[in-house]
Amino acid sequence: MTRRTAFVHRMPAAAPDDVVPLASALGNGSIPAEGIVAILGKTEGNGCVNDFTRAFAVRALKDALRDDLSKEAVEKVSYVMSGGTEGGLAPHWLVLGRAEAGEGGQSPSLAIGGAHTPAMPSEDLGRRGQVALVAAGVRAAMADAGIDDPADVHFVQIKCPLLTADRIAAVDAAGKTTSTRDTLKSMGMSRGASALGAAVALGELSLDDIEDSAIGRDVSLWCGRASTSAGVELLNHEIVVMGMSADWVGPLAIDHAVMADGIDVEPVRAALKRLGFAANGQLSLAEQPGMVALLAKAEAGSTGRLRGKRHTMLDDSDISSTRHARGFVAGALAGLVGHAEIFVSGGAEHQGPDGGGPVAIIANSDWIRGGLPS
Amino acid sequence: MTRRTAFVHRMPAAAPDDVVPLASALGNGSIPAEGIVAILGKTEGNGCVNDFTRAFAVRALKDALRDDLSKEAVEKVSYVMSGGTEGGLAPHWLVLGRAEAGEGGQSPSLAIGGAHTPAMPSEDLGRRGQVALVAAGVRAAMADAGIDDPADVHFVQIKCPLLTADRIAAVDAAGKTTSTRDTLKSMGMSRGASALGAAVALGELSLDDIEDSAIGRDVSLWCGRASTSAGVELLNHEIVVMGMSADWVGPLAIDHAVMADGIDVEPVRAALKRLGFAANGQLSLAEQPGMVALLAKAEAGSTGRLRGKRHTMLDDSDISSTRHARGFVAGALAGLVGHAEIFVSGGAEHQGPDGGGPVAIIANSDWIRGGLPS
Amino acid sequence: MTRRTAFVHRMPAAAPDDVVPLASALGNGSIPAEGIVAILGKTEGNGCVNDFTRAFAVRALKDALRDDLSKEAVEKVSYVMSGGTEGGLAPHWLVLGRAEAGEGGQSPSLAIGGAHTPAMPSEDLGRRGQVALVAAGVRAAMADAGIDDPADVHFVQIKCPLLTADRIAAVDAAGKTTSTRDTLKSMGMSRGASALGAAVALGELSLDDIEDSAIGRDVSLWCGRASTSAGVELLNHEIVVMGMSADWVGPLAIDHAVMADGIDVEPVRAALKRLGFAANGQLSLAEQPGMVALLAKAEAGSTGRLRGKRHTMLDDSDISSTRHARGFVAGALAGLVGHAEIFVSGGAEHQGPDGGGPVAIIANSDWIRGGLPS
Amino acid sequence: MTRRTAFVHRMPAAAPDDVVPLASALGNGSIPAEGIVAILGKTEGNGCVNDFTRAFAVRALKDALRDDLSKEAVEKVSYVMSGGTEGGLAPHWLVLGRAEAGEGGQSPSLAIGGAHTPAMPSEDLGRRGQVALVAAGVRAAMADAGIDDPADVHFVQIKCPLLTADRIAAVDAAGKTTSTRDTLKSMGMSRGASALGAAVALGELSLDDIEDSAIGRDVSLWCGRASTSAGVELLNHEIVVMGMSADWVGPLAIDHAVMADGIDVEPVRAALKRLGFAANGQLSLAEQPGMVALLAKAEAGSTGRLRGKRHTMLDDSDISSTRHARGFVAGALAGLVGHAEIFVSGGAEHQGPDGGGPVAIIANSDWIRGGLPS
Repeated sequence: MTRRTAFVHRMPAAAPDDVVPLASALGNGSIPAEGIVAILGKTEGNGCVNDFTRAFAVRALKDALRDDLSKEAVEKVSYVMSGGTEGGLAPHWLVLGRAEAGEGGQSPSLAIGGAHTPAMPSEDLGRRGQVALVAAGVRAAMADAGIDDPADVHFVQIKCPLLTADRIAAVDAAGKTTSTRDTLKSMGMSRGASALGAAVALGELSLDDIEDSAIGRDVSLWCGRASTSAGVELLNHEIVVMGMSADWVGPLAIDHAVMADGIDVEPVRAALKRLGFAANGQLSLAEQPGMVALLAKAEAGSTGRLRGKRHTMLDDSDISSTRHARGFVAGALAGLVGHAEIFVSGGAEHQGPDGGGPVAIIANSDWIRGGLPS
Repeated sequence: MTRRTAFVHRMPAAAPDDVVPLASALGNGSIPAEGIVAILGKTEGNGCVNDFTRAFAVRALKDALRDDLSKEAVEKVSYVMSGGTEGGLAPHWLVLGRAEAGEGGQSPSLAIGGAHTPAMPSEDLGRRGQVALVAAGVRAAMADAGIDDPADVHFVQIKCPLLTADRIAAVDAAGKTTSTRDTLKSMGMSRGASALGAAVALGELSLDDIEDSAIGRDVSLWCGRASTSAGVELLNHEIVVMGMSADWVGPLAIDHAVMADGIDVEPVRAALKRLGFAANGQLSLAEQPGMVALLAKAEAGSTGRLRGKRHTMLDDSDISSTRHARGFVAGALAGLVGHAEIFVSGGAEHQGPDGGGPVAIIANSDWIRGGLPS
Repeated sequence: MTRRTAFVHRMPAAAPDDVVPLASALGNGSIPAEGIVAILGKTEGNGCVNDFTRAFAVRALKDALRDDLSKEAVEKVSYVMSGGTEGGLAPHWLVLGRAEAGEGGQSPSLAIGGAHTPAMPSEDLGRRGQVALVAAGVRAAMADAGIDDPADVHFVQIKCPLLTADRIAAVDAAGKTTSTRDTLKSMGMSRGASALGAAVALGELSLDDIEDSAIGRDVSLWCGRASTSAGVELLNHEIVVMGMSADWVGPLAIDHAVMADGIDVEPVRAALKRLGFAANGQLSLAEQPGMVALLAKAEAGSTGRLRGKRHTMLDDSDISSTRHARGFVAGALAGLVGHAEIFVSGGAEHQGPDGGGPVAIIANSDWIRGGLPS
Repeated sequence: MTRRTAFVHRMPAAAPDDVVPLASALGNGSIPAEGIVAILGKTEGNGCVNDFTRAFAVRALKDALRDDLSKEAVEKVSYVMSGGTEGGLAPHWLVLGRAEAGEGGQSPSLAIGGAHTPAMPSEDLGRRGQVALVAAGVRAAMADAGIDDPADVHFVQIKCPLLTADRIAAVDAAGKTTSTRDTLKSMGMSRGASALGAAVALGELSLDDIEDSAIGRDVSLWCGRASTSAGVELLNHEIVVMGMSADWVGPLAIDHAVMADGIDVEPVRAALKRLGFAANGQLSLAEQPGMVALLAKAEAGSTGRLRGKRHTMLDDSDISSTRHARGFVAGALAGLVGHAEIFVSGGAEHQGPDGGGPVAIIANSDWIRGGLPS
């Protein structure tokens, strides 16, 4: 079997349509276009309903890839845009992909797999049908990555569909019902059910544990390794699995943590230590290049309390609680890792416990050891 | 000379006018009304121009004190309201004061002194005249606290005036000029000049170093121990100095740090260690009660960069950069100290370096040692 | 029977706690404190959850009345604060009351009546029980005003309760259910049910037409003469009825209109004409003093369309749709009446048709005729 | 000389990148691509600094035109995007252009001319140099439209450059100065100087009346027929002139008005009447199709007063005053014309009097007469 190697490139974005660094990397061959599995973008909109920076970014990214890829290949890449760079968050891109490996190289190493589920009937959204569909998709993405053991998976990024007025009408016309008639709420239902699907595939939960009525409501059900986002442009699910595999080589490694609340940084520090960082206090300047990417989910706890003390995020009618939470959690994590070019995303239904969320860290072991990159 | 002891009580605020905890503490004698020097409040408005939570809070606080104090005594207390509880920040009060000490007790200990300057001619606002006036006021507050050595001062809280259309007109009528004709901008000018006044009194800068033209412009001039806020309701300055003195006794102690930017938490950790906290990673639950108060200033760096990476706070026309900065810095500091009932305030002109700010920590040594409070 | 006369004074507010004009009017006797029935305030907060300008205003108003009224009398006045002065809306007060009339005077004239319902069991909120309770209260307020014929009623202002976590828990403990468990949503349910209660009392709807399941959902059910607002500080309903009565004398008169959408100004123009204004185009400077008060409800239509064209109010995650709607409708009405010191309020559940709302105008016929006020 | 005819097509936008109506019109030949002079877009961003809906729209529009036009021809079109659809404002496009006319047709008729100025030295921005440059450009656009008499011009749309950090540095390096060092402020300076340039070309002001120090400051200097917007993507000025000419034929006509403040609708009504509308009260449903386009400028008056009554737009730190003003003025104008698919734009420096602004109306006389379009 051919051994593979994963690549993850983080690059700044001067604007939502700034593809100069990507085009440059494609042009000089440092990123092989045909190996790209997903591009994640932290864009500078409000991250809520009327955030057009996401679609603007996707349009620019696709145009940039078209020089190197066919129209079909361009569409096969997963584009996961997360709006909202509150506080010091730096707009940036993460380009994830893979290539055949040469001789040598460290192993086990970061493995990246992808899968697209079949289109989902809209009546399944936010229900057990979606959970089961996503669970199968996550298993397919694991197989694509060559990962057998769910314990080797550290992060699952899922892009899922939502309901529109038209889709609800079609379900009505077929004599069926949708889990909600509120299109905005359908985004949360879809994100939540997708996260539960990942939990089932990873053995964190059993499908039997999950009633339809619990989806979107029972905050005790959650996945510690899933990050999901809903988009109007798809009817199926785009799934990217990241984990560790002995069949992959290279200096990259991934680990994860679960924050119990927005300032629960010690589990993240423990993950950094497992990856080889000293992480006593804030990451030193010498260590920072070793942290290739940090991905986290943030939300305001539904109790209106953070460690027993009142927060006002849910009562602020001027700023969405998702914006508050992203900026605040970004501060906590940036205080730990020493910069704010990190991927903090909102909308954490069933992703980590109430008020908390999963965090994944991708590290480059060559840098951590203080040497030059291999 | 009678020895004194300082008290600092932190109490939650369920709303801007929630004085129930204060009234209760006054009622049961745990706070002596006549000893109160200042009440600081973190209120849940936007912290900007149209934030009426500050005035609402002051009205409620004065009403609450009126049962125990004369009208004149109520007015002598300094009320410093800082609007903005972005992210997880918890609305709360800090009640600072002093009383005669009995026998025994630890020393040196926290010392608190206050002073009010004479009314300032409006043409001096934002100019060297204000710097000199505030410097004299800080020295008076130091004397009130019984602190001789500026090195023993750790924090100076200053409430300063601003310009209104009427005040500008009066200056015009006298044939003089004001430093700015923009009333909003006058708040920043007054805060900045007041901070520079503190720097002069504390020996951080010399008055000779400060030109009128540098005030509000030269970000290389700053004080590492001042926090200033401007209010329309006064024409003079209300100054509270906090430091350490061998003439004071009790378990409270204060130290300070300067953050070079919004995530520069290691100097704060060092201050915690000097105060006796372990502070390896986040403060433990056992240690947290020992941290009585944390006061910090936050701002978005004027360069549009945080450690070389772009931030978008200054370009966000939906959310003021001051709101972004408070929530983000609150996350960094809460990640360090384990909760967000901390006093993070915006508007940091000449208070700490560009994008950073001063931080003060008041600790209770009895708690730090893990025992019950004395 | 003693004849009565109504008074309505409109006065500007320089801030939410600006009671200088009120205190002055009380001081010089131009407003008799003991006759005040209600004070309505347009305050400059966001009009949403965390708008503290309303409570701040009420605190200041009560303090101002305390010099002239007993504590009990102060509490009997209805304080109806509506936050949100978007666009050009001018913060202002409307002081409504009545006194015994002397000889002479025009008749019929504006009549003002008030009533307080008994406390409502929380399980009735948002259900037919509330509708019936409010209907009875409106009838009582009509009786207080001496109005028999519902056709003589032109506006009903209702302040109603809401659910809190504690109130829901008490209902739960009693083995009953509430209409919603969402405290924010309970405000809309209470406003809506109260408006339907007014519709029943005024003969616009029959209680038999209203199912529990329709409250808060069926936008075809509405009252054309009600304006309701929910507050946490009461458990019953405070109701003020305004209409025309032959038993009242004086120059004031009231009429009303229903706007079908936010720019449907022609019915309002027709009401102005009925009151004696020329109202060809915008009210002239000479006519404007004749319009003592304009009260309106505004909301973004739930269809996302205004006369077939898309609006974006419901999709704007930066500005609440209620803020958009108030500013926009204020422009339409100010374009008609020539200034923006008008009482445009949000939250129009069951108050006028979807996207529209009721409007009431109080006029002074002496002014309309172009003479000096009597 | 060949006679020309102008076209103006208004079409809804379902999103900032919704070019479906445009593509359809290009596809079926109802809009000749080669005749397009300018596309104006009302896009649904915040209209302030971080509004990316404008660039997103331009990208989509250019892509849509590329099927029918060469790359050079695509760049020659003026794209003027105005962000902000507050209140009921409907996102929409205005496609303006011209073609050779056949026999017959009404005359005089709407004439459209365009011109691009040479690149402007950055040191001229916001100074008399820019005023003179724009004045020459407006004269060139008039010539292109075949309009000799400035009295025949009714609207001038200008897109102007702004200062960036790089451009300021280049001026510094040349030993010169810029009118401001604040890049945001440079947008207002450029808009203002451009409007004054139009005023000079149209004979409303003389260049001799305008001192450098008055630009951006003296609100008594203004143009009643200019609408200007600044963009980072150009160094010169793109100018579109609209007026009436006997050399043009067709059913379209244009007239204009100046609003003295945000609710000054009577001058607009008068313009409607001059164009043939009844305009007694709101435009009737039958009349509305005759109003092809309405273009207006809105701003919050700098005095903080609207007709003597306080407004709060300038003190609202949650919503930019430009957003307040657009929504409010949109309400006033929509109340007049019967819908909100109108082009209300912010940033009115030297465009109309303080707090007011110019309004242009393009009408189709065939529709006004109640017949079918010719």
